[in-house]
Amino acid sequence: MADTSDWPTLAALSQAARDRLPQAHWDYLMGGAESETTLRRNAADFERIALMPGALRDVRQVDLSTTVMGRKLALPIFPTAIGSLDLLHPEGATASARAAVAAGTTACTGILSKPSFEAVAAEAGGPLLFQLYIRGDEAWLADTLKRAEAAGFFGIALTVDSPVYGRRERDIANGFSSRRAPDRAALPNTPDATRAAYQAAVSWEILPKLREMTRLPIALKGIMSVEDALRGVELGADAIYVSNHGGRQLDHAPSALAQLGRIAAAVNGRAEILFDSGVTRGSDVVKALALGASAVGLGKLQGLALAAGGEAGVRQLLALLAQEIAATMALVGATRLSELTPACLTSSDVPILP
Amino acid sequence: MADTSDWPTLAALSQAARDRLPQAHWDYLMGGAESETTLRRNAADFERIALMPGALRDVRQVDLSTTVMGRKLALPIFPTAIGSLDLLHPEGATASARAAVAAGTTACTGILSKPSFEAVAAEAGGPLLFQLYIRGDEAWLADTLKRAEAAGFFGIALTVDSPVYGRRERDIANGFSSRRAPDRAALPNTPDATRAAYQAAVSWEILPKLREMTRLPIALKGIMSVEDALRGVELGADAIYVSNHGGRQLDHAPSALAQLGRIAAAVNGRAEILFDSGVTRGSDVVKALALGASAVGLGKLQGLALAAGGEAGVRQLLALLAQEIAATMALVGATRLSELTPACLTSSDVPILP
Amino acid sequence: MADTSDWPTLAALSQAARDRLPQAHWDYLMGGAESETTLRRNAADFERIALMPGALRDVRQVDLSTTVMGRKLALPIFPTAIGSLDLLHPEGATASARAAVAAGTTACTGILSKPSFEAVAAEAGGPLLFQLYIRGDEAWLADTLKRAEAAGFFGIALTVDSPVYGRRERDIANGFSSRRAPDRAALPNTPDATRAAYQAAVSWEILPKLREMTRLPIALKGIMSVEDALRGVELGADAIYVSNHGGRQLDHAPSALAQLGRIAAAVNGRAEILFDSGVTRGSDVVKALALGASAVGLGKLQGLALAAGGEAGVRQLLALLAQEIAATMALVGATRLSELTPACLTSSDVPILP
Amino acid sequence: MADTSDWPTLAALSQAARDRLPQAHWDYLMGGAESETTLRRNAADFERIALMPGALRDVRQVDLSTTVMGRKLALPIFPTAIGSLDLLHPEGATASARAAVAAGTTACTGILSKPSFEAVAAEAGGPLLFQLYIRGDEAWLADTLKRAEAAGFFGIALTVDSPVYGRRERDIANGFSSRRAPDRAALPNTPDATRAAYQAAVSWEILPKLREMTRLPIALKGIMSVEDALRGVELGADAIYVSNHGGRQLDHAPSALAQLGRIAAAVNGRAEILFDSGVTRGSDVVKALALGASAVGLGKLQGLALAAGGEAGVRQLLALLAQEIAATMALVGATRLSELTPACLTSSDVPILP
Ligand SMILES: Cc1cc2nc3c(=O)[nH]c(=O)nc-3n(C[C@H](O)[C@H](O)[C@H](O)COP(=O)(O)O)c2cc1C
Ligand SMILES: Cc1cc2nc3c(=O)[nH]c(=O)nc-3n(C[C@H](O)[C@H](O)[C@H](O)COP(=O)(O)O)c2cc1C
Ligand SMILES: Cc1cc2nc3c(=O)[nH]c(=O)nc-3n(C[C@H](O)[C@H](O)[C@H](O)COP(=O)(O)O)c2cc1C
Ligand SMILES: Cc1cc2nc3c(=O)[nH]c(=O)nc-3n(C[C@H](O)[C@H](O)[C@H](O)COP(=O)(O)O)c2cc1C
Repeated sequence: MADTSDWPTLAALSQAARDRLPQAHWDYLMGGAESETTLRRNAADFERIALMPGALRDVRQVDLSTTVMGRKLALPIFPTAIGSLDLLHPEGATASARAAVAAGTTACTGILSKPSFEAVAAEAGGPLLFQLYIRGDEAWLADTLKRAEAAGFFGIALTVDSPVYGRRERDIANGFSSRRAPDRAALPNTPDATRAAYQAAVSWEILPKLREMTRLPIALKGIMSVEDALRGVELGADAIYVSNHGGRQLDHAPSALAQLGRIAAAVNGRAEILFDSGVTRGSDVVKALALGASAVGLGKLQGLALAAGGEAGVRQLLALLAQEIAATMALVGATRLSELTPACLTSSDVPILP
Repeated sequence: MADTSDWPTLAALSQAARDRLPQAHWDYLMGGAESETTLRRNAADFERIALMPGALRDVRQVDLSTTVMGRKLALPIFPTAIGSLDLLHPEGATASARAAVAAGTTACTGILSKPSFEAVAAEAGGPLLFQLYIRGDEAWLADTLKRAEAAGFFGIALTVDSPVYGRRERDIANGFSSRRAPDRAALPNTPDATRAAYQAAVSWEILPKLREMTRLPIALKGIMSVEDALRGVELGADAIYVSNHGGRQLDHAPSALAQLGRIAAAVNGRAEILFDSGVTRGSDVVKALALGASAVGLGKLQGLALAAGGEAGVRQLLALLAQEIAATMALVGATRLSELTPACLTSSDVPILP
Repeated sequence: MADTSDWPTLAALSQAARDRLPQAHWDYLMGGAESETTLRRNAADFERIALMPGALRDVRQVDLSTTVMGRKLALPIFPTAIGSLDLLHPEGATASARAAVAAGTTACTGILSKPSFEAVAAEAGGPLLFQLYIRGDEAWLADTLKRAEAAGFFGIALTVDSPVYGRRERDIANGFSSRRAPDRAALPNTPDATRAAYQAAVSWEILPKLREMTRLPIALKGIMSVEDALRGVELGADAIYVSNHGGRQLDHAPSALAQLGRIAAAVNGRAEILFDSGVTRGSDVVKALALGASAVGLGKLQGLALAAGGEAGVRQLLALLAQEIAATMALVGATRLSELTPACLTSSDVPILP
Repeated sequence: MADTSDWPTLAALSQAARDRLPQAHWDYLMGGAESETTLRRNAADFERIALMPGALRDVRQVDLSTTVMGRKLALPIFPTAIGSLDLLHPEGATASARAAVAAGTTACTGILSKPSFEAVAAEAGGPLLFQLYIRGDEAWLADTLKRAEAAGFFGIALTVDSPVYGRRERDIANGFSSRRAPDRAALPNTPDATRAAYQAAVSWEILPKLREMTRLPIALKGIMSVEDALRGVELGADAIYVSNHGGRQLDHAPSALAQLGRIAAAVNGRAEILFDSGVTRGSDVVKALALGASAVGLGKLQGLALAAGGEAGVRQLLALLAQEIAATMALVGATRLSELTPACLTSSDVPILP
């Protein structure tokens, strides 16, 4: 395992990944759809809000624990689903999951995992979330869910933002396709087109069906509008996972952050709120928590850490983020996540003149 | 015909054009008037709006068909009028028109076409729109319209934004003038100054005159204000073609996109809405359709594709745009153009704090 | 006289000046006070407004004539006061004035002119405006005004934005001071400090005094607030000359353009409105006219033209600007300056969504 | 002592410092926390407001004097607390204090001073402010305050924005820590962790305790919210020192300037207002004064001047700032600080259209 002092900052992890990854894999990880406008918005919108300092609070103890789908976690962050993780590091999803569990949190493991999602769950050392794509018929689906339950996953995240794939032009220019990746074991053995048709056909009717097929709590991953969030809540989703897939699906979508606060307010506690897209450091996590998320997924950050140093890289990522989140909370004057509310935030361009 | 896989993305078409065109022709195609402020605004304003993702809709079938001036088209895009197209590719307007008809759509062919607008119509393989400049007396005008009808054009687009030419400083610096181009065959054989005076004199009185002279539906190309749009509607225009000539005429005009929504709302169905200026990819088209356009013209994109590969280039352009439009619609959750409304859009800088 | 076709665009004039001027003189001409924030704002704010195209107006005849302080001028632009013009070209203020009169307009000649303001007036070929700095006692002032009247000036522009000099850091860094320039002949023969004290002491009481001392109409040059404009009007100023000295005096002042519209609206015809600061091309002039100015002064543009080619340079400058103004008006659909109103303008970032 | 004409502008002082300082010390001085977002905001927000020129006021005499905590000062600026100043120049805090007193103002000397805060006070030549960090028990605190009083300090600035240190990534990357600096003499001789726990524990209860322990007036340094300011006022603070520690503590905090006006308005005279963070030149000082500050602290500017030339550098800094402040006030039309009010300011992006 590499010496974590090689990466004293998040920038060092990112640089190490840049040094190690071949260009096509770097592009696969970091690229967005089409003009990468949403990718840029995800980052830029974190700059549009500011954190309010709070003076003279006793902040000796800062508690970072949270609850996700009924499970208590030591940290409000988790590595989230990334297909073809093994392109970034041979131990791929297993390394991420192990690091996460070791740090007292969980990971959201994708159905596209190598050697298989069950193998990842078996080696993780603790229960994980299961990210689901629907690419087969109901029999296949029921079977898949049963297998996920048997493997000990404690919740399902159904990805709802990918009826078709976003056009990722870096991959097209590189002649790269993750569809050739060896992580498709869990998908039905049918032609690509058949699977794509199932994927494109998924509609709101899926939710009551999933409910019947599994007793696990269900998150809808990739919700971006209040309307869709409320529909999900009405149809019984346990969690609304606000995300724009890190800017990889609908280009020109707003940043996920821009939608988070209003969705959380509309959902108003009737479902848990999860979030990802655009997080690059601890203060970003604090902002998402203050806007209503219970926990925050790590996409590209996870990929960078994994590429930099496998499991050790992801451990260091989680350790650095935990440090940053704790320091940020102390300076905001908050000692528990419940104290992080929209009142801790302000627009970064409030009027200066009184 | 070149292998279309040479241009797997729109960026590849653009790069190929850059490689092939002499600087002066590149500048002629890509330049704008004066400081190119409107040119920049045309591009920048597409960044100011965002597309809202829609989750969990069945999007297996996405229908791109539309109707323009009574004609059903398979795609909501069409190559629009460009003078001196033969500078970009020897087959010029003919190549564009053929590619368009082959793709199930139409082209708007300029009166400034080589060898002649009639020749283009004859080779296109299907009916086209006729872009009209007025540079002669009423006899000449009546004759020209008669010829256009005879050639099978199915509508007229009268350009109303060019009483004088915008100052294109790239051309001035290059010592380039398209007025020397061999595509002026359809203009009266009078001195430049005489033709310019006819051009500068055209006023709203032209509309009832055109109405009398032709039975073809009439679009006003280059409308930028609600006031002018409503006046056109009152005087019987069949279509309002919102455009700022791609930033080549009045520099410092707003972007055409900024005016589209309010013009469409004011016209409110009493005339068809067409649009161009600043479109660089499929998501731009989707935004213009959502703001009320029935179809979207392609100026510089067409020129780039033509320069890259003639008819094959334009075919590839239309194919790529169709793919992008369809993918974007699927991710927005829309399966027909009629489902694209302003509700699919949001500002890219909506407030983040609830 | 140089061949004007050397400078087919304003950019060519500017480039020629850049090539000819020593760095210290270029910096003297182009630099602003301190951080040059106001200098940048002057330019940037012209980008913040847009010109509305107007379709289908007969624009064969576009009339650029205006009236300034009772004098009819063929063009709404004039070279304005620049100290030490002879650093830029040996014929300095005389060349500017001659070119202006030849083009049917006037120039505003500074009291700091070489060999003397009277000599400039004598060679101009037509009446000029006289820019006044107060650096001596009342006797000197009365005498100076008498000399200006005798020399045929038709109006006075009292500069009110310079009680002390702005800190121009380019000049400080270059060790350059225009106070060593040989154009101070008209100032009293007293120590610098004495003159500076007179300059710093000038208050609103000067206006009734000037009124008594001269029958010429009086403009206040350098007004930037509604409050000061209204006070000037009440105390009998004939013209309010909105200007921030081209960003050379109070750094961090707003752009002059940002103040023009509200000052013109408040003055509401009780005094004439003149304007300068930040004009770089014809469309800028059109915007200032639409916001209420009767004519627009040319500072740095004049200096560039003079450095490029002396009188011929300034002639070409005026010719190019006249062309640009006329073309812009035609595309806006205006044929007389009185048709240029705020209704011809819109913000460049109007909301796109209806 | 170096010749002050080596530094005719603030930029020259900054350049000299850049040339002299080793990279790690430059980074220590100039860096901010984490992504340096607040550092950038501090600078950027000064650009967001504009100064209104005022014409025709007699400005021969401009008076820069102010009162801070009951003491009359000739200038509204003072070098403020910087730990490890001796890294920048061997005479460190003493040089700053001597230059300040010589210029008729004061300095705010940190408890982290070398050889000791008492030695600085003894050599300064006049009374100073004492910046306090709490890192020990009440006995230590009472003793420290007694020593400060004995040393002749005329006021206390308790830093309230640093319960934990901000993460300064330049220092981490450089392997630099100021905690190794030899300026910790005044801290209790306990392990780092013990001192850190005291620092993190400080709460609002400290204020009444300090009141009991000392008769000196107390400022709270690092207040950023109206809420905290009002709480401080209620608990008896004599001054509210608005500051975000120059962007070195909570990254993503708003600029201090953005908070200044509303805090001053809310405090409404019940406590004195001091300010720092982001000041780079005289016009910045004028803006802060107009928004309600009585005097403005100099952090990085002081460090640059000290590194450039020790005491002579700081003298030149204060002289240049005084010149700039006086010139700016003259052009604003103000002759006393009391004339600087929010009415002298306007937003830099006021609407241009009337
Ligand atoms: C390389 C890569 C592959 C991904 N694959 C999947 C996937 O298979 N399923 C899924 O639901 N999301 C996938 N995502 C999206 C992530 O789960 C997550 O939503 C996104 O990365 C968050 O944005 P961030 O990268 O800015 O943190 C992928 C993201 C990346 C970067
Ligand atoms: C090189 C070139 C020549 C053009 N010539 C004409 C023309 O002859 N008649 C006309 O109505 N529009 C003409 N246009 C304007 C286009 O029809 C269209 O309005 C514009 O290009 C749309 O903007 P876009 O280039 O950003 O797509 C021309 C545009 C270009 C780029
Ligand atoms: C080099 C230079 C010298 C100037 N000297 C004077 C002067 O002596 N008196 C005066 O009233 N204005 C003077 N001005 C200001 C101009 O009259 C005018 O207000 C300003 O240049 C307009 O802005 P612009 O340069 O952006 O056109 C000077 C400007 C420049 C560039
Ligand atoms: C190198 C450095 C060290 C500092 N050390 C201290 C300190 O020990 N105590 C303190 O209260 N503030 C400290 N500050 C903050 C300053 O007192 C002040 O708030 C800040 O520098 C103001 O912002 P400016 O640098 O933009 O002027 C330090 C600032 C710098 C740049």
